[in-house]
Amino acid sequence: MNLTEKKLGGKTVYDGKILKLEVDEVELPDGSRSLREVIRHSGGAAVYLEADGKILLVRQFRYAYGKEIYEIPAGKLNKGEDPRAAALRELEEETGYKAELSPMFSLYPTPGYTDEVIYVYKAENPRFVGSRPDEGEFLNCKFLPKESVLKMIKSGEISDAKTISAVYAALSENKG
Amino acid sequence: MNLTEKKLGGKTVYDGKILKLEVDEVELPDGSRSLREVIRHSGGAAVYLEADGKILLVRQFRYAYGKEIYEIPAGKLNKGEDPRAAALRELEEETGYKAELSPMFSLYPTPGYTDEVIYVYKAENPRFVGSRPDEGEFLNCKFLPKESVLKMIKSGEISDAKTISAVYAALSENKG
Repeated sequence: MNLTEKKLGGKTVYDGKILKLEVDEVELPDGSRSLREVIRHSGGAAVYLEADGKILLVRQFRYAYGKEIYEIPAGKLNKGEDPRAAALRELEEETGYKAELSPMFSLYPTPGYTDEVIYVYKAENPRFVGSRPDEGEFLNCKFLPKESVLKMIKSGEISDAKTISAVYAALSENKG
Repeated sequence: MNLTEKKLGGKTVYDGKILKLEVDEVELPDGSRSLREVIRHSGGAAVYLEADGKILLVRQFRYAYGKEIYEIPAGKLNKGEDPRAAALRELEEETGYKAELSPMFSLYPTPGYTDEVIYVYKAENPRFVGSRPDEGEFLNCKFLPKESVLKMIKSGEISDAKTISAVYAALSENKG
């Protein structure tokens, strides 16, 4: 069965700082019509850095959830930016580390309404070169033992999707 | 360091079918001001069902990406709906299966701009009770061997965050 939805028309409802919202009318496979609300986003890049059994995490306030949460270092791609370059930039800006990066996987965070792709990399040979946080970015970074991170995922204290995916993927590889 | 961002004001830019977009002005920890663009969403529920070394996936057209993708069965919470009830409902609607569910973890898909929480459950004792797809929902469901799913994650053919998280988490548990 061909599941394709055909765009009939649409409009940009909002075009802001980090996202654009488009609302399109589409034709469904059975010929009926529906609306699709889509966030257009430039994409993200994230880095999983594990050293001596510890995982590098940043803790920052996330306004959407109204609280501080732990995540692996990550950030938004600048327009047209290479994801690996963005990952290296964000790693250094947020944590002061440089490293070699190899791709782990790309993530579609919530495909029902956003076109964002998050490119997740694994860091090798990390070296600390000194922290220089983004202007206007407020965060703390620290290494947490892998066992603690797994407990925090199970307890719900860590919920970030790119972080959970990367932690479990690395665990599977190590055990594989 | 207190990283809290204080809301100074804001407006609802769009209130639609599956999401609401709010744009708020906030005060940052250093007293400066910034904008926060936030998608408000009722949340989602997803089910990881593995049987005989195969994983139950649904394939559907995702308009935001303009293509069909594989995901574990999932759907949006109705307003105020219990996540487990939503997971059971979506599992049956999308695949025709009933099962017992135990919580795996909750996911924040992309915390930079959405407040969505995706509740991920593991299914036990699945039994097929007959498929009755949602009206207006077009999808195919099938069991794929776990080895194929892992290859498809590595090749980029499977990118959905809840799917990757659940597959690797289950793999880690099995090997643990």
